[in-house]
Amino acid sequence: MKKNSGKLIISSSEKSSDILYISKLHIPDEFIYVEIAGINKKIIAVSSLEYSRAKNSGSADCEVISYEELCNGETADVENSVIALIKKYSLQELAVPFDFPTGYYQLLKTNNVDINVVKGSFFPERLIKNNFELKQIALAQKLNEQTINYGISLLRESNVNDEKMLILDGEILTSERFKGILNSFMVKRGGYCDTLIASCGAAAAEPHNTGNGPLYANQTIVIDNFPRLSSSHYWGDMTRTVVKGKASAMVNKAFNAVYEAKNCVLEKVRAGVAVKDLHELAKNILVKNGFETYVHDNGCHVGFIHGLGHGLGLDIHEAPRVSSANDYILEENTVITIEPGLYYPEWGGMRLEDLVVVKGNGCELLNNKECILEI
Amino acid sequence: MKKNSGKLIISSSEKSSDILYISKLHIPDEFIYVEIAGINKKIIAVSSLEYSRAKNSGSADCEVISYEELCNGETADVENSVIALIKKYSLQELAVPFDFPTGYYQLLKTNNVDINVVKGSFFPERLIKNNFELKQIALAQKLNEQTINYGISLLRESNVNDEKMLILDGEILTSERFKGILNSFMVKRGGYCDTLIASCGAAAAEPHNTGNGPLYANQTIVIDNFPRLSSSHYWGDMTRTVVKGKASAMVNKAFNAVYEAKNCVLEKVRAGVAVKDLHELAKNILVKNGFETYVHDNGCHVGFIHGLGHGLGLDIHEAPRVSSANDYILEENTVITIEPGLYYPEWGGMRLEDLVVVKGNGCELLNNKECILEI
Repeated sequence: MKKNSGKLIISSSEKSSDILYISKLHIPDEFIYVEIAGINKKIIAVSSLEYSRAKNSGSADCEVISYEELCNGETADVENSVIALIKKYSLQELAVPFDFPTGYYQLLKTNNVDINVVKGSFFPERLIKNNFELKQIALAQKLNEQTINYGISLLRESNVNDEKMLILDGEILTSERFKGILNSFMVKRGGYCDTLIASCGAAAAEPHNTGNGPLYANQTIVIDNFPRLSSSHYWGDMTRTVVKGKASAMVNKAFNAVYEAKNCVLEKVRAGVAVKDLHELAKNILVKNGFETYVHDNGCHVGFIHGLGHGLGLDIHEAPRVSSANDYILEENTVITIEPGLYYPEWGGMRLEDLVVVKGNGCELLNNKECILEI
Repeated sequence: MKKNSGKLIISSSEKSSDILYISKLHIPDEFIYVEIAGINKKIIAVSSLEYSRAKNSGSADCEVISYEELCNGETADVENSVIALIKKYSLQELAVPFDFPTGYYQLLKTNNVDINVVKGSFFPERLIKNNFELKQIALAQKLNEQTINYGISLLRESNVNDEKMLILDGEILTSERFKGILNSFMVKRGGYCDTLIASCGAAAAEPHNTGNGPLYANQTIVIDNFPRLSSSHYWGDMTRTVVKGKASAMVNKAFNAVYEAKNCVLEKVRAGVAVKDLHELAKNILVKNGFETYVHDNGCHVGFIHGLGHGLGLDIHEAPRVSSANDYILEENTVITIEPGLYYPEWGGMRLEDLVVVKGNGCELLNNKECILEI
């Protein structure tokens, strides 16, 4: 007898972009997606709370069923529902994503289901963006660029007090206030960046330090903005580093190196290129300019301490990682960031990031690639 | 020989509030937390990208180590790092959370580690909020109430056009625009609600329908706001249902029933009370007022179709669920929502939600419990 096999996800749309992708539903609590290979059936099982919305707004490819109906008088929860589904369709073998909850894995094993954990993409088709997805990502990045430009205009029009702090409309411009202004700008236009980075000086030596306290003149200000559209849940991602006033010789040198690395990589991006070669190209340009990557005596990692970029879609970080550890060869309509950066606690951090769609003969930039250091 | 045992989490701070809680780090990519029982050691392992930030901002109770140091020349990734940690501390038995990724579970089994999957709270201490947490939740809820009051003031000052659409500042007030205004108000004050609900009329019959299109006079408008503070990541949660203009007799009746249910439950909340009894009390009051819960002929669930409430902290929905299926007895300094609601596609939805801290002799309301239907 041929086994009845399929695919299974149990998660929330916030924790799993796979279930968001396939169900087209944004549900804050975990729910069930089952795909049954033999009969080509896709099922979404949800609580009574979500039933009507799932029926009305979920993917038209999916049948919707409630836990109450599945559990037939038993406690209408996820565990009883998934067991009921397995019995109903005599499922004997299921593929689950790498991050499938171990608790449910054990429940399924106890119920004699063979589980095949998929390493890597659970829906490989997510890697290659369709026209709808490309449009959403382009929209998110357009909002992103507009927001960063607005932010830079605010920095330009700020004054500088005796302590070199930026002053906007008579008040100290802190990182927190600046991020609040930018997010306020974005939410009125349908996007939001939860951990928007606006880090200044030494803080920017930690790539994911979101920044706090006053922004200062003559120091680097890294603005890394990655809004998610609230309608479609697709992301944009872009970084600019600026100095209000005068940059030091070292910061100027770092800017030129990172800008050169970014633009040289952009010229090489096309389908058929290995992502690890892009990372190595950026790294070599930074080294050529005198910026080595190493571990400091105090254990601190300095230099170009992260991968060159990452894929982006319904996840802000998704396949393909653009790093030296990834053997992936770029395919057309993959969307990736290109974001070389340098980090040294002595003077801070510097990162420039563009977003591109990979094409057969090059790449399509989703933002203006020009960068200005001193403003 | 006594086995070397401990606790393990591998996740991002966005997917796991447990790792956010214990590490005090908001890291967007997955990282490792290990707690070793015998030597009372807590370790955070991160990539070089996050190393400095983890050292500077992570929990002072935790030692920070980088994947590079752990992997010692091998590919510096999560898999090699977790294996290196297991070898370094001769770990033989590890407790992991219910949602621990099955992919890592299998890796650990292959490396002869016994895994104990914890059902329920991985850090039971998260249930009882400490003073810092109570303050953060109170702050989030204060912002929440202020925002809802602001929203209601905008609805009040709106005009109504011939098609009964609300008009604010000469433009149609859509759900999207209204939510944008409220979120803009919140992000300037340090909070944001990703899936803020402002649903009108029939749409509100789906409890998690976030709403779209024009808001109308004489129909229910459900405003369910749950901002998360961007600094501490704690949530607030509050719902009000209003009608701009005149509510129908049915909507008035539903409002009175839900308001009565909410306030009667609030009088009963205290340490020692079973959450299922609170749910039953609310349900009975709704039934007494003529509102039954059942499944419609078309499969649609109507009436009081969700649990009465839920715990809240670093997760918007966390233990304890306040529902008929939960045997939990309330403890002091647990924080729960009380949110009875009624949903019928014929006329829409109605929900009123307060947030409370459970105390020994009652509960502390984190918002004003008064509700007004017609505005």
